[in-house]
Amino acid sequence: MIGFIGLGRMGLRMVSRISKKHKVVAYDIDSQARNKARELDIETVDDLSELPAQLASRRIIWMMVPAGAPVDEVINSIQDGLEQGDIIIDGGNSHYNDSTQRAETLSKRGIHYLDVGTSGGLEGAEKGASLTAGGPVEAYEAAYPLLETIALPNAILHCGASGAGHYVKMVHNGIEYAMLQAIGEGFEMLHSGSYHPDLAKVAEVWNNGCVIRSWMLELAARAFTNDPGLNSLRGEVGGGETGRWMVETAMKEEIPTPVIALSLLTRYQSRQEDSFSGKVVSAIRREFGGHPVKLSE
Amino acid sequence: MIGFIGLGRMGLRMVSRISKKHKVVAYDIDSQARNKARELDIETVDDLSELPAQLASRRIIWMMVPAGAPVDEVINSIQDGLEQGDIIIDGGNSHYNDSTQRAETLSKRGIHYLDVGTSGGLEGAEKGASLTAGGPVEAYEAAYPLLETIALPNAILHCGASGAGHYVKMVHNGIEYAMLQAIGEGFEMLHSGSYHPDLAKVAEVWNNGCVIRSWMLELAARAFTNDPGLNSLRGEVGGGETGRWMVETAMKEEIPTPVIALSLLTRYQSRQEDSFSGKVVSAIRREFGGHPVKLSE
Repeated sequence: MIGFIGLGRMGLRMVSRISKKHKVVAYDIDSQARNKARELDIETVDDLSELPAQLASRRIIWMMVPAGAPVDEVINSIQDGLEQGDIIIDGGNSHYNDSTQRAETLSKRGIHYLDVGTSGGLEGAEKGASLTAGGPVEAYEAAYPLLETIALPNAILHCGASGAGHYVKMVHNGIEYAMLQAIGEGFEMLHSGSYHPDLAKVAEVWNNGCVIRSWMLELAARAFTNDPGLNSLRGEVGGGETGRWMVETAMKEEIPTPVIALSLLTRYQSRQEDSFSGKVVSAIRREFGGHPVKLSE
Repeated sequence: MIGFIGLGRMGLRMVSRISKKHKVVAYDIDSQARNKARELDIETVDDLSELPAQLASRRIIWMMVPAGAPVDEVINSIQDGLEQGDIIIDGGNSHYNDSTQRAETLSKRGIHYLDVGTSGGLEGAEKGASLTAGGPVEAYEAAYPLLETIALPNAILHCGASGAGHYVKMVHNGIEYAMLQAIGEGFEMLHSGSYHPDLAKVAEVWNNGCVIRSWMLELAARAFTNDPGLNSLRGEVGGGETGRWMVETAMKEEIPTPVIALSLLTRYQSRQEDSFSGKVVSAIRREFGGHPVKLSE
């Protein structure tokens, strides 16, 4: 019997996968999400603090909730019901420093804490994800049958002490930011350049045997097939939290990661309707050279 | 009967693949390369100007030679032996502007010129590459049986007028530069960070279900397996020609591609033993703030 907390887009798909191999008791703060789980014949509790009592020891509880306060709230709600040797797993995108601290705090009460980076998006949640774990090896081994159910074959790695799993996931996401931006800029070159090839077909051909073949390029092909000019979207890019942590860590450790950092900053730039830096540059160019400027309307 | 010119690392692998489906007459400027082809039972000529006479019309000749002068030298050597309707294909990494010009010049004599970007590296040359073509549709269709032999299934695309094939390949390479740099920076974060996971294993796990799964990450896993700390290499990155064309084109067309441009510049930076820009920064910091500097030895 596994405890599973957090039935959002990722969590619901994962718990449905897990429930095919393990008995599960699930919880989400939202009663509608709990209803959805029950529709999949998954047992739920309506009060999170009651969850530990539903599990036999050694308890294993997977959390799939947003980073930050929600993780601490979950831990606070369940920890009184836990016993020495029980295992909490944070499968979300927490900051590795938070995971290290939580592991330390809980270890004082004999509770094991694993930080697991889960990658693969919604498709991974459904068909098998990729997991990078940090924390005590003994707890990792005890949780392995659960990890195996969540992951694809050969897609689980113990990366080191507490925090290592989320650190590796953070770096994964940093790489993801720059790969995404690379693909974005490449298709900008095709879209705005002199030739106008069919972008979906280019993405498909690039995916068949090209050096840059990748899952993200497959997703690009799918997106261009559905909406060839991407006219339904704005070029404003959301997200950015794990990327920011990655760049902050690089700053703190003084590790040169210029392209990942620029990919993050380019996201921020994409969110500006107009830019103050551009106004400053225009203003000074006008001052020194009388260069023409664009006036705001 | 197909003509094939250029038996280097890519060419020899490709011609061996082609010769399983088509009769081939091959040439390379280097007699040792010609010998290697003959060892594979491929017919060769010792004088390039004799190659056209070995082919029945409508002649189809694939060039796989370095960009620039070698391509023009090959064209000059064979063009007198060609007739109206014959097709020359440049499968190398030529600049799309050169390809456009060559196509125009040859079209005056009724000779068709196709520019084909070939991607997939050595493995692609051997097991099937990915091809993006530009040039007259009629010539493309006539050459299709050859293209099919060189390419993987669903890996051939006619991208537009002359130059389009090499333009798309150039953009592909630009994306490749930034993806490579992204992967490089990510592993730098793992190598220099607080945790020291096994890099080969991280690359393998990332490749099984992660968002960033890609062929380049597979190659990274292979490289880390062979040399876990990459101690046998220096971090000086070679190449850069197609990337430079890509950034030059972006500049000319004023298309913002900051991350691809920075990936190229980072390669140049990687080639410096010491940097003059760093000296300038250190010198000025010392002047204004008395900040400590590193003196050259």
